[in-house]
Parts: sequence; C-alpha cells; structure tokens
Amino acid sequence: MGQQLEPIARMVSQLSRLPGIGQKSAQRLAYHIINMPLEDVRELATTLYNGRKAIRYCTVCGNYATESCCEICKDDRRHNGQICVVRDPRDVAAIERMHDFHGTYHVLHGTLSPMDGVGPEDIRIKELMTRLNDPGVKEIILATNPDIEGEATAAYLARMIKPMGLLVTRIAHGVPVGSDLEYADEITLAKAMEGRREM
Amino acid sequence: MGQQLEPIARMVSQLSRLPGIGQKSAQRLAYHIINMPLEDVRELATTLYNGRKAIRYCTVCGNYATESCCEICKDDRRHNGQICVVRDPRDVAAIERMHDFHGTYHVLHGTLSPMDGVGPEDIRIKELMTRLNDPGVKEIILATNPDIEGEATAAYLARMIKPMGLLVTRIAHGVPVGSDLEYADEITLAKAMEGRREM
Repeated sequence: MGQQLEPIARMVSQLSRLPGIGQKSAQRLAYHIINMPLEDVRELATTLYNGRKAIRYCTVCGNYATESCCEICKDDRRHNGQICVVRDPRDVAAIERMHDFHGTYHVLHGTLSPMDGVGPEDIRIKELMTRLNDPGVKEIILATNPDIEGEATAAYLARMIKPMGLLVTRIAHGVPVGSDLEYADEITLAKAMEGRREM
Repeated sequence: MGQQLEPIARMVSQLSRLPGIGQKSAQRLAYHIINMPLEDVRELATTLYNGRKAIRYCTVCGNYATESCCEICKDDRRHNGQICVVRDPRDVAAIERMHDFHGTYHVLHGTLSPMDGVGPEDIRIKELMTRLNDPGVKEIILATNPDIEGEATAAYLARMIKPMGLLVTRIAHGVPVGSDLEYADEITLAKAMEGRREM
C-alpha cells in the first residue's frame, strides 16, 4: 500500500496545513474522519465551505458580515458616537464577549509595520477617516494590540484624528485581572504604574 | 452580532466535534479557514469528503482499500504464508511503516471485550477462520495491542487456531505495556516483530 492510501495521504496533507495541527494530529484526524458516517463528513465539509463562502466584510466597518453591512453597523442603537478601532474581526468578537461596549467598530485589517512594508494606505485608515465626517461621531477608542505595531498605529491615528476636534482614547494597559505581579513583564508593569489612578 | 455570526458558529461547532479539538482551537481554526482563499477551502472540504467516500474495507483482510481488495492482498508477493492479525487499519499502517513485514494482514475491527459486550461474533474472526483453509497459510502472527483486551483476543485466537496445526505467534512485549500500537515507533515495532514467540 506504499505506506498510506492516496486519499488518506491527501487528507493528512490538507489537515496538516491548518494552524496547530502537526503530522501526527493530522493523521489522527484523517482516520477519525474515515470512521465517521459519510453523511457526517458531508456535513463537516459543506459547513466549512459554505461558512467560508457566506462570510464577507462589512462595507462600513470591515467586520465579518453575511450581508453588505454587519449586524452591529445595521443596529441603530449601536450608533452612540463611539467607534472602537481594532486590528481584526477576532478583536471585535473578543470585545463583544465582554458585553460592555455599545458603540460601533472599525476594523483596520492590519497594523502599521514599516519593517513588513505595511503603510497607512495598506490598512483601512482612509475608510475610517471617511466615517469621521459623520457629525454623530464623538469618540474614537483605539483598541489595537499593546505591542509595537499596535502602539505605533494608535499613535499615528491619534495624531491624525485629534486635530479634527474628536475625543481620542486608548484602552488602558496594566496587569491583567487575576494575574500575579511577580510574573508581569517590565513594560506591562511600567504601564500599569504610569496609568495608576487615585482610589 | 449576538456574539458570533451563524456560519462561523456552525463551523466552530463542527470542528469542535473532532477529537483533540476543543472550543478555543475550533474557533482559531474557523477564523483561519475564513481567512483562506475560497478555492483552498473548497479543496480542503472536497479532499475530506472525497477521501472519506473513496475509502472502503478490503473484502479479504478488512484493511482500508479503494477497491474491493486492498493493495497488500492484491500483491502476490505478500502471500508468503504469514498473516498478521491486528485490531484496526491504523495498526496495518503502523506495521507497514517499519518496512519489515512481508506477509498479509487480517484486521479484526475490534478486540474481544466481554465488559463492553463485544464477543467473537462481533469482530472479524469468522473471516479469519475462512482464510486459514488456504493451505498456503503457515503462520498467524497475533499483533493485537498489548493491553487486556488485546491479550485476551490473542489468547482466544491461539486457542482456536493452534489445533489446526498452524504456527501461532505473538509479537514480543517490546511494545510498552498499556500503550497503543498506532503510536509505537518503528524500531520498537520491529523489535516486537522479531521477538515474536510461538503461543
């Protein structure tokens, strides 16, 4: 059998391309799928393909959507004057999970990274600027990641937006709730110290 | 967006049913797939479905096959008088990887387990007995797993086959006790095969 049957080898090769799935896991998954009822495999395959096909980007904010406009942008109650700027749609999902933000989002689909050749025209900054012409917009919350690229992108956006007379805020950096000070890195600790507030 | 778009939620639900993939990994995989080119997702989906559809069991030995007879049973050079009895097709793949066994296989598709209500008629023992009528068969190598069920199955088969005047051997306990054949390395498997003893 030359090691492995060709249909199985192909399954393993496809599965091992997915993130976090090595050769052994791919093999285990392939054998599992081969032992599944054919109807269940059909459902798995069509769910993945149709799911991918159904998802596009909201033309307003860049979030995942099934129509031209995402559920959040379509919801009038979410247009409260706050726009939260994030790197990618996963960040929208993370912030939505906390149920505490009631404005809309703007997904940049990347962060500025001169080293990788990513400039302001490569991420959705122009689209953000267009949205700021809406007089209802009051505050831009910069929620890019607290890493070098995220900070640089936030600084760049703040420099562009503040002259427009809008409130520009940055999410707080600090020690994560429930964590141990002892294990916090120096930069996080410095930020936490710098951002201290009177009690 | 009620947390997650429905097509994504469906992808996560399908993926999280696979073994070793929890909720978080399923989410990460779903987002990865959403960011893949549509053509690549189509290829992944069709490879899984067509792969599953193409695989059936060899009518002779019970191994995975793409035709009614598997590649090994079809190969005349493999009919050397030795039949290696294993629990499932994954074990065939494991033994083939060591390139050291040149006979044919018999896949039981299970092991005797009175506790789980699995008796001799529930696994492919009758089919094995039929194959033993071939005068070319000289040796039955029992390569069921070195665990309780595997040992019980080997003992049961030895008791049935030895009176027929055939050589019955058991792979040596080079394979760590309590482990799974599928995950044994080639050298351990080769040692186990080499150290087989008559039962």
